[in-house]
Amino acid sequence: MRFLDDPHHDGSSLYVSAQTPELGAPVTVRVRAPRAAGVTGVLVRVVQDGEPRYVRAATRTGGRTGGYGRTDVWWQAEIVATNPVTRYRFLLSTPRGQRWLTAAGLATHDLTDASDFRLVCHDAPPAWLRDAIVYQIFPDRFGRSGAVREPPFWALPRRWDHDPVIPSGPAAARQFYGGDLDGIIPHLDHVRSLGADTVYLTPVFPARSNHRYDAAAFDRIDPLLGGDQALHRLADALHARGMRLLGDIVTNHTGDAHAWFTAARSDPHAPEREMYHFDPDTGDYEAWWGVKSLPKLNWSGELVRTRMPEVLARWVPPFDGWRVDVANMTGRRAAADHTHEAAALLRRALPPTAALIAEHNHDASPDLDRDGWHGTMNYSGFTRPVWAWLRGDELDLDHFLGVPGGVPRRDGLDTLATFRSFASHMSWRSYVHSWQLLDSHDTSRIRTVTGSRERHLIALGLQATLPGTPMLFAGSEYGLTGVNGEHSRTPMPWNRPADQDLATLAGYRDLLGLRRAEPALRHGGLRWLHADADCLVFAREYEDESLLVCARRAPGTPLRLGAPAEVLYNSSDKDVLAGAGPAVLVWRPGR
Amino acid sequence: MRFLDDPHHDGSSLYVSAQTPELGAPVTVRVRAPRAAGVTGVLVRVVQDGEPRYVRAATRTGGRTGGYGRTDVWWQAEIVATNPVTRYRFLLSTPRGQRWLTAAGLATHDLTDASDFRLVCHDAPPAWLRDAIVYQIFPDRFGRSGAVREPPFWALPRRWDHDPVIPSGPAAARQFYGGDLDGIIPHLDHVRSLGADTVYLTPVFPARSNHRYDAAAFDRIDPLLGGDQALHRLADALHARGMRLLGDIVTNHTGDAHAWFTAARSDPHAPEREMYHFDPDTGDYEAWWGVKSLPKLNWSGELVRTRMPEVLARWVPPFDGWRVDVANMTGRRAAADHTHEAAALLRRALPPTAALIAEHNHDASPDLDRDGWHGTMNYSGFTRPVWAWLRGDELDLDHFLGVPGGVPRRDGLDTLATFRSFASHMSWRSYVHSWQLLDSHDTSRIRTVTGSRERHLIALGLQATLPGTPMLFAGSEYGLTGVNGEHSRTPMPWNRPADQDLATLAGYRDLLGLRRAEPALRHGGLRWLHADADCLVFAREYEDESLLVCARRAPGTPLRLGAPAEVLYNSSDKDVLAGAGPAVLVWRPGR
Repeated sequence: MRFLDDPHHDGSSLYVSAQTPELGAPVTVRVRAPRAAGVTGVLVRVVQDGEPRYVRAATRTGGRTGGYGRTDVWWQAEIVATNPVTRYRFLLSTPRGQRWLTAAGLATHDLTDASDFRLVCHDAPPAWLRDAIVYQIFPDRFGRSGAVREPPFWALPRRWDHDPVIPSGPAAARQFYGGDLDGIIPHLDHVRSLGADTVYLTPVFPARSNHRYDAAAFDRIDPLLGGDQALHRLADALHARGMRLLGDIVTNHTGDAHAWFTAARSDPHAPEREMYHFDPDTGDYEAWWGVKSLPKLNWSGELVRTRMPEVLARWVPPFDGWRVDVANMTGRRAAADHTHEAAALLRRALPPTAALIAEHNHDASPDLDRDGWHGTMNYSGFTRPVWAWLRGDELDLDHFLGVPGGVPRRDGLDTLATFRSFASHMSWRSYVHSWQLLDSHDTSRIRTVTGSRERHLIALGLQATLPGTPMLFAGSEYGLTGVNGEHSRTPMPWNRPADQDLATLAGYRDLLGLRRAEPALRHGGLRWLHADADCLVFAREYEDESLLVCARRAPGTPLRLGAPAEVLYNSSDKDVLAGAGPAVLVWRPGR
Repeated sequence: MRFLDDPHHDGSSLYVSAQTPELGAPVTVRVRAPRAAGVTGVLVRVVQDGEPRYVRAATRTGGRTGGYGRTDVWWQAEIVATNPVTRYRFLLSTPRGQRWLTAAGLATHDLTDASDFRLVCHDAPPAWLRDAIVYQIFPDRFGRSGAVREPPFWALPRRWDHDPVIPSGPAAARQFYGGDLDGIIPHLDHVRSLGADTVYLTPVFPARSNHRYDAAAFDRIDPLLGGDQALHRLADALHARGMRLLGDIVTNHTGDAHAWFTAARSDPHAPEREMYHFDPDTGDYEAWWGVKSLPKLNWSGELVRTRMPEVLARWVPPFDGWRVDVANMTGRRAAADHTHEAAALLRRALPPTAALIAEHNHDASPDLDRDGWHGTMNYSGFTRPVWAWLRGDELDLDHFLGVPGGVPRRDGLDTLATFRSFASHMSWRSYVHSWQLLDSHDTSRIRTVTGSRERHLIALGLQATLPGTPMLFAGSEYGLTGVNGEHSRTPMPWNRPADQDLATLAGYRDLLGLRRAEPALRHGGLRWLHADADCLVFAREYEDESLLVCARRAPGTPLRLGAPAEVLYNSSDKDVLAGAGPAVLVWRPGR
């Protein structure tokens, strides 16, 4: 399918005059229609106070007209951001009939407002977040300062470069490699060399596991990691480089060693009792997935609503924001659904420069654009479609990021359909502030999924050039492997040259460096130009800059997009525009 | 496209064991998979407290296996209705890969939860509503008792059978034909002869217009219509026949003659001041679409939240429920969105036997399944797709139920896509309790839209046989015409035989009588079997009964669905199964 002649709109600044309009303010929206689309009229449908209104758009001269051999007609209209989230779409008149243009694309039939474009007036995410490239560190496995500390009672000590990670079973959460916060600092130049500017640490509060998602306290940093002072040293080292630091917090539950819970459990009359869900008859309590060491917090109660926002605020700075674990379940239980209130309370407790990103494994869209989370970890709208398109032939996993049945094989059209389904159910703003990740501490490594450096770099090419904040899991830049989350938490191979794939590392530096260098890759719109089973082509366009990207998993037919003005990246030595591959190619088109 | 080999599920009792489960209760869900689909495994994905879980389904023997020449395999699993609205979908393993089955159909790619099936635990709609066929009466134009009354100051008296309706301009709302409530009673046998069992009256409170959407009071029935006693006489006459009566209420605004508003306007310190949106500086007030005679109610204030539910409760009985005008805007203004709270307050004020149906012109789905409205007037998901598929060649309207640009021409595939888009974004329960209408007092008449009796009966065939409550606008059974809402408010042609198309009337009696007679048409599932540009075929299935419906707007190729056991209705004398048409055919299939 070629989309070169399709009219286009997205939420980027080429098409919308204000990314965060004031409530009630006018906003100019534009549609670009290649002449071949034959558009003879454009109406904007805006839903205001629940009622659709129609505004006629006018053609406009000037502005960008480039279009890869096409001439474009631009239409524009002024609409009003009447509500905190104002939905709009376009009704195009063409010689072949009317067409709706929504974030899901063109439609010849009527459809619900679910995929309408959205103006969002809620407080803006911090400006730095849109330019960020995030590097995820699991502190026990990244670097060691050499400080000698007594392992805690629960720990199973392991040797960094010698003992393989235990991928499952009761020892998995107990194996202890001894990474700490001061051990990160010497490697910050490595992180920066990848183009990353933000370090995201998985939890650092005291706990009884190596992953620390069972927080035992929120008032101090785990002494095993170096304590509060080490966190400040790390934050200072990052800030001195113009970089940022994000924490990781569980808002759905605590560990059962947490003082809130021990107080609640030991005394039915303790104020903390209402912070959890105790059964008044049996004294039993609700826990995450029934795991009794992880008692679920009760967001119906005042104390959780007061204390949890205080915790997040207490640690900003040194943190520049938070990734929120199990955000999807936070505040949800049976008839109660306080998730949106919880997210808004947490966000409002933070300064406007702080980021708040929510973990969702399936569909975050109902929880975004609600004045809470700035974005999600986009496993559904990015990781899964990339995995299913680029999975290796030999891959043998028994699930697909939690979906039973292994990683399916999908073609490029299904991949595009998945990208679009998720992106079209959130605002552009939530989409570009969400994290696009290839893997994490909770998943198989992308190298294991793709099975080759060749396909790994194609996946990386998509991550580095599509909208959304790239989030890298430390170690994947060296081509490390792992079959599941535990197994992927490999100690970094600083001293294992055999585990360092330097060609992959170069790909990270080149592709993410390109994202760092090119505003179009961070701030540009997204226009799909072509999709077939083996090839996806899109344009990122911003002000006067256009970049084109072709991700090709197998050889195919030549693309007819003119000669490139400049090739910025090619993961192979092949002529990708002539149909050769597999490869990912980024180029600046000729005019 | 033929869907005969597609696995199927919908929310009907063939597939779901409880229409309104208790919160936390187990529910059995089933998938029917024709053998040709090759399904080798079925997982149910259930979102519980925000997290997807997977439950494996087992094949089951017994149950229905008929399938128009196919053999079906049934899969079933027990899931839990964890939340007030619990979303679920199916993951099917097939030799060609995994497939998602959601209310939007089968998908080979991942998609958001927006079209997931839904279990709904909110209080059930009244049982009678699912069997209802609703007949809409605009009181000024339906029947006259002969009582002599002085027309009010605003009225422009018109003669019933002589003066044509004025279709636009300032006189439209003032023309006065003098219909009243006692004038309806003699025609109730006519209403019942159509299969209808519920009369829905547009507003009957005092006002300053013939439509009375500018209510001047809620404490009495307009004396011009016979007053309170006449309403009781009408309700008694209906109830004596086992029929029901619905009122029409505006919850978004009142008329400016209403005592609440006159009190509010005359005294800034009146308690009623907070019932509207007065600008504290200018004294100006918010009004519906800026029409100052229709001041908008303020649902942020306590007084509206108390008084409006009292109004609805006060009149049930004699009414058996309400249709709510401008439900889509009720409680919505700028940053405030109290629509769901308003709907829930109104519903809870009513007895469980009362119906509450909301007007929405575009997309009701975000407002349904919220413990408020039982259903919507499904203009978007039914009226528009039927109009666009069956519009006459000569039709020349300048808008499409409010969408500028006239009624588009759409093929059967787009029609099906529209049906599915809207039906898949609400629960089955909200879908079947929504009103499927061909026209109303706010629209052109279906006869004008279709341009012929032939196509009118096809439209009626869809209305009578698809899920959802048919709502008829009085007069359309005689084939009356009208180019817009005002123009369609024709005085009934009781005494104008030339305006009575008796063949159309017979079609209404036959098709709606069939709905009344056949439980499958009221309670059955909906399985699409075939769609092409000119032909739509579907099955309604319930317990041991199956009915098939073919709506065909033009001749085409023969259907291969076996010989019918019994033809229940044919709008033509043609062999529709052989591809002849236009016609609508309803038949009982052979085994």
